[in-house]
Amino acid sequence: MKPINVGLLGIGTVGGGTFTVLERNREEISRRAGRAIAIAVVADKDLKRANAIVNGRAKVIDDAMAVVDDPNIDIVVELIGGTGISKQLILKAISNRKHVVTANKALLAQHGNEIFAAAQKNGVMVAFEAAVAGGVPIIKSLREGLAANRIEWIAGIINGTSNFILSEMREKGASFDDVLKEAQALGYAEADPTFDIEGVDAAHKLTIMAAIGFGIPMQFSAAYTEGISKLTREDIQYAEDLGYRIKLLGIAKRKANGIELRVHPTLIPTKRLIANVEGVMNAILVKGDAVGQTMFYGAGAGAEPTASAVVADLIDVARTMTADPEHRVPHLAFQPDQLSDIAILPMGEVETSYYLRLRVHDKPGVLADITRILADLDISIDAMLQKEPNEGEAQADIIMLTHRTIEKNVNAAINKIEALPVVAGKVTRIRLEVLDK
Amino acid sequence: MKPINVGLLGIGTVGGGTFTVLERNREEISRRAGRAIAIAVVADKDLKRANAIVNGRAKVIDDAMAVVDDPNIDIVVELIGGTGISKQLILKAISNRKHVVTANKALLAQHGNEIFAAAQKNGVMVAFEAAVAGGVPIIKSLREGLAANRIEWIAGIINGTSNFILSEMREKGASFDDVLKEAQALGYAEADPTFDIEGVDAAHKLTIMAAIGFGIPMQFSAAYTEGISKLTREDIQYAEDLGYRIKLLGIAKRKANGIELRVHPTLIPTKRLIANVEGVMNAILVKGDAVGQTMFYGAGAGAEPTASAVVADLIDVARTMTADPEHRVPHLAFQPDQLSDIAILPMGEVETSYYLRLRVHDKPGVLADITRILADLDISIDAMLQKEPNEGEAQADIIMLTHRTIEKNVNAAINKIEALPVVAGKVTRIRLEVLDK
Repeated sequence: MKPINVGLLGIGTVGGGTFTVLERNREEISRRAGRAIAIAVVADKDLKRANAIVNGRAKVIDDAMAVVDDPNIDIVVELIGGTGISKQLILKAISNRKHVVTANKALLAQHGNEIFAAAQKNGVMVAFEAAVAGGVPIIKSLREGLAANRIEWIAGIINGTSNFILSEMREKGASFDDVLKEAQALGYAEADPTFDIEGVDAAHKLTIMAAIGFGIPMQFSAAYTEGISKLTREDIQYAEDLGYRIKLLGIAKRKANGIELRVHPTLIPTKRLIANVEGVMNAILVKGDAVGQTMFYGAGAGAEPTASAVVADLIDVARTMTADPEHRVPHLAFQPDQLSDIAILPMGEVETSYYLRLRVHDKPGVLADITRILADLDISIDAMLQKEPNEGEAQADIIMLTHRTIEKNVNAAINKIEALPVVAGKVTRIRLEVLDK
Repeated sequence: MKPINVGLLGIGTVGGGTFTVLERNREEISRRAGRAIAIAVVADKDLKRANAIVNGRAKVIDDAMAVVDDPNIDIVVELIGGTGISKQLILKAISNRKHVVTANKALLAQHGNEIFAAAQKNGVMVAFEAAVAGGVPIIKSLREGLAANRIEWIAGIINGTSNFILSEMREKGASFDDVLKEAQALGYAEADPTFDIEGVDAAHKLTIMAAIGFGIPMQFSAAYTEGISKLTREDIQYAEDLGYRIKLLGIAKRKANGIELRVHPTLIPTKRLIANVEGVMNAILVKGDAVGQTMFYGAGAGAEPTASAVVADLIDVARTMTADPEHRVPHLAFQPDQLSDIAILPMGEVETSYYLRLRVHDKPGVLADITRILADLDISIDAMLQKEPNEGEAQADIIMLTHRTIEKNVNAAINKIEALPVVAGKVTRIRLEVLDK
């Protein structure tokens, strides 16, 4: 069969990895795909960098739009990132009836509905395995491998930077700021780490997984996003003492009245497998009604792990590009006219358990006041840890774990507790998930 | 689009689960597949059992061959098991140009080459996600999700019965025989548990994964198979003391001179994620050259988890049945004319580390004799644990962990050590894998 000609837009970390993997595993890949897959053109603004990597093995130009318009190109791989020029390029490639492979989670989470509709209209595929959890084939698993299931929930460690920071904070008893600097020095965190540490990147990925799992449109703007930058080493230690580990989780859950879609630090029982996923690794738990709990684990970022997903998509697209569009796997797992309009729940309606840490004056009756407030709001306590005041201090920490309750009740309780004269400062609130069913 | 008519052969545990899942998730499944998938006929020798489950929602007959010959049936699902009648039925279905979905690992591991060749010749698909690790989409992940990679090794907990027994032995300090009885009472082990506890079932699954991972024919007869029935609670405890957990692993590894294909109890460092997979759960580590280590985890057996895989295959086949055969994913991941003839290595050539337990008379010079034998065979010791003799006994246990070495050297060392007059009885030998790269 004739080889597939690929146009690569952007040859940075992932683009370079894609070039390398396609070259190194050329024989293995064509043994699988039944035809050769070759990068014919690379477009990058930095011609010097691009030429250094490509080294004469493909054409190198600086005009990405020329690749998208090139009639010899069968599949366009977009690895530029961002939501500006990359969106224009992808839409143009689609209107030129070219298939697209992309790792661009920000773009898909925010403009995926428009992009998939255009792809559908033009009979082409937009493949995006690399957009979530690097080389872990979670998109394919959710969309095809678990297609028999009604997906009940998805919970994932899907930001390696945050997970690395939390692992280091726990293992070394270090502060967030110190570990962030270490992560930046190691190249695990960007100079501006906001997207990673404030949960935005995880929310992009969660939005995509939720769309596929539940058959809903992309709704990034409805996702609740809270990062790890306010976590203290004390909370991490108290959680450990209580048998829990704190992870930044992206959680999407189907409820009777809507979908929960939220990213936040989460206490998980230490004995759960996913609580033991450390460093920059990613892992996603998927609960299906037939299969039960499954977990998918691997490197969530990096040149070659992400390239592994990009190239797998290239092989997939190469296999099905001549098939009828109606026989292809739908972009969002469900047929485009079969998406559900079930609403994303506001955060106040979310149901989960809570870790609450309060700093109180060591006086009689303090606990009675606090537990009364909780009881009045129907919040029951699962575990409590009262620390003695430090030498020479008059205030002590109280940590409470609640049973499952509605977030707005917890918010109301926190407001009342903070108003008590015996309570000093703000209540620290971290959500807790048992993930047992 | 016209609905897909499925003929179900065998409605035992997995067949019943398949019927249930297709019914319950009918709407979800057709939203994904773009068409209805319905079981039109069920064939089972036990008409009473079949009718009780089907309850009028499909035709029930006792003649499986009539289903295979029924021109209205598009896909045959074989859930009878075994290698006798099921093989005839599948080959007949294929020659009638029907697609086949099966969970039959024993059949595929032993006769897969013949079956896939027949399917290829007749332009039909034989799908078998359910044959390995129940609902975990490991076949799809290996074949498609990781298709960009040169697979380096696969190591899996792929027999839930064995893993349950090992978990219970460790947690309760119980003997193999006692836990086996418990497992039988709970329905986790068969009345004749040989296939599970002696590693045969795991070797079937490993054979299939190795074929897909490395692009080789099925070679079950070349797999080394050792089960868990000789493991003692003492060895499990000693392993724990040294920081290791014992699991029955199926390991397939690509080496320069061949493929290692082996099932045996294996010490794994306790801090590895896969060491913490407990009970009846399955987990498979896959190491690819681009993606690094990935892990796939979930229920490896049971009615609905296995049905999850059967139904996912039905959806896959329904999607691609009208596509050109040359555009389908090849049965063994690689194009049929592109399989490799790389040999399976004999067990003596396998390279791994070892746990050795010796019972020695507590006399001077014992250790010198033993370590000299090891040194002469180029086997170096990584860790050692010498226990004091129990009160009133003259013999003590010595446990040694070796660095990586070739199995035939260890065999030679064991023979020499057992011949020493100070060594009592046989040396216990359990293989050890660090699984770190």
